[in-house]
Amino acid sequence: MQDKDYMQMAVQEALKAQGMTWTNPLVGAVLVKDNQVLATGYHHQFGKEHAEANTLSHLADPQQAQGATLYVTLEPCSHYGKQPPCCKKVAEAGIKKVVIGQVDPHQIVAGKGIEYLESHGVQTEIIGGTENLNVAYNFFYHKKRPFVTLKYAMSIDGKINAAGKRRTILTGDAAQVDVQKLRLHNQAILIGANTLRIDNPLLTVRIKNLPKPPIRIVLTKDANQLDFNSRMFKTQGEIWLLSRTKLTQKVAENVRCFTAAKWTPSKIVQFLAAHEIQSLLVEGGSNVQSQFVAADLADEIVTYIAPLVLGGTALPAVFGQALAEKSDYQLLDVKKFNQDVRIRVRRKECLQE
Amino acid sequence: MQDKDYMQMAVQEALKAQGMTWTNPLVGAVLVKDNQVLATGYHHQFGKEHAEANTLSHLADPQQAQGATLYVTLEPCSHYGKQPPCCKKVAEAGIKKVVIGQVDPHQIVAGKGIEYLESHGVQTEIIGGTENLNVAYNFFYHKKRPFVTLKYAMSIDGKINAAGKRRTILTGDAAQVDVQKLRLHNQAILIGANTLRIDNPLLTVRIKNLPKPPIRIVLTKDANQLDFNSRMFKTQGEIWLLSRTKLTQKVAENVRCFTAAKWTPSKIVQFLAAHEIQSLLVEGGSNVQSQFVAADLADEIVTYIAPLVLGGTALPAVFGQALAEKSDYQLLDVKKFNQDVRIRVRRKECLQE
Repeated sequence: MQDKDYMQMAVQEALKAQGMTWTNPLVGAVLVKDNQVLATGYHHQFGKEHAEANTLSHLADPQQAQGATLYVTLEPCSHYGKQPPCCKKVAEAGIKKVVIGQVDPHQIVAGKGIEYLESHGVQTEIIGGTENLNVAYNFFYHKKRPFVTLKYAMSIDGKINAAGKRRTILTGDAAQVDVQKLRLHNQAILIGANTLRIDNPLLTVRIKNLPKPPIRIVLTKDANQLDFNSRMFKTQGEIWLLSRTKLTQKVAENVRCFTAAKWTPSKIVQFLAAHEIQSLLVEGGSNVQSQFVAADLADEIVTYIAPLVLGGTALPAVFGQALAEKSDYQLLDVKKFNQDVRIRVRRKECLQE
Repeated sequence: MQDKDYMQMAVQEALKAQGMTWTNPLVGAVLVKDNQVLATGYHHQFGKEHAEANTLSHLADPQQAQGATLYVTLEPCSHYGKQPPCCKKVAEAGIKKVVIGQVDPHQIVAGKGIEYLESHGVQTEIIGGTENLNVAYNFFYHKKRPFVTLKYAMSIDGKINAAGKRRTILTGDAAQVDVQKLRLHNQAILIGANTLRIDNPLLTVRIKNLPKPPIRIVLTKDANQLDFNSRMFKTQGEIWLLSRTKLTQKVAENVRCFTAAKWTPSKIVQFLAAHEIQSLLVEGGSNVQSQFVAADLADEIVTYIAPLVLGGTALPAVFGQALAEKSDYQLLDVKKFNQDVRIRVRRKECLQE
């Protein structure tokens, strides 16, 4: 096994906590000595122990760590947060070398973990290969705003629903499960008031029990006009209303209303950044999505294409706002889900090498 | 090697003549004795010798065929056309058994080849596995009309061009070469007068020198209004104009005008069937394609999806004619061409088992 193989093992560990770490990054670790894996571990959940500590806790005898090499997908932290700093634990355990996937872009760490280790006699090496584990986390600390993903299903002729007035289910079960996975990776999900009215969606993650499910956000001119009997309002989990007018009626405790003169995409991402939200999934409708594209705030587009034709009068995807051609996207991947095809594109500047 | 392996070898032979056989099917053959391939062959070109004769001609000594097994992708023909019947040649060569991919759906053969062989002491067996070689040929003889394919390139948001007034090149080189291959498999290509005006396309096959390139058809209300300085009219190869009014001006010899009170998709396919055209590729525009979908005359849809967003005011794909949802399509395949993705769907009733 080579360094990159152990690192991939650490990536697999990290992925076990998908959706569980909220604004924390996914992190996995593997402890190796004499080409033997001594222990593996990962950061299980927001507020719980970090991957390094989790890995060390799996050793039958702490002495085993003496002289071992730790592979960890992200630079060990150097600060006291909910947990004591990992680099201190690593150095104290007698680990000889730490092989690191990537430097932590969070200002509070950003190389300080590596400095601490080196100054305490622990060798370090950064080998890469883990950047796709925490796309939004990395993006957020570089760009100071959430990573925005647009998601829509469309027919083979590029339409999102049949008449524009009623919900059209285009995709099959497998694609719909994949949408749940997509939600898992986002801290907030946004829809417009029209989508709430026409689709009446839940926007919940039903494939996994999350300690902090994505905040569901409804963009509306007037929150008082929303139908509070919609299915979403009968579920638990935070719901934020972004409205121009104040909400005058009494609503459930999990619903909060924020007002601004105009909630442009730019205003929305600033607002979310101020709330430390690193990722936003815009699920519709096509007019709202068009606004995000026009504002250059659509970092990734995920579309599910179903093998049917909706034809002439159906509502097209990403429609409404006049805008110049946006050609700075790059194909990320293509995947079949039975009869449906998922295509993901990402803005070139958001693609990591 | 098993029967199906030899048959696949015969399929590979057949494919060598893609685009060359016009209304004839692609046919390949492999002659085998004692698990040794004695010869292979295929139907090279419309009017040239058939696959069986071509294979036999590759034997150093005709006596070798005695007692051999012939694998052929299509039932040997039984009629005198441009060539003497193959089943006669096969029987006379002393071939012991003919393993056949599929029965020829052409009424003039349709089992008569097999009957002839059996009654002349040659065993036959039909093993399948070759039906996708000649999709349009099979379709034409079953349905008595050409197999219709719609083709368009669209942006990730389902638009075909930026403003509806000018040509937008969406896809890259690899996808454009694939379009040339798609044309190769069609005997006719149709566009509307708007597409001629806006895109000014050649609609030629430039990757292979074809003895009979696809007939280029322009659908127009009034052929006299067409711009005969368009690039297409400066090329060789047949061009047919489907017009409501008679053409009054003199045009080049390769241009023919056909008139009818109204060229509906149904009328068009009837007209093409009468001319023995087995396959039609409708390359646009979106209004013409919409008419074919609405008339249930779009058997396959091939779309190339480019990683860019055209947004709000751009013209959507398959747009214009109000129609009910068409959900009888099935995903055929997905393929990447660098940055572009090709998705092919086919009407379920056209999918062969």
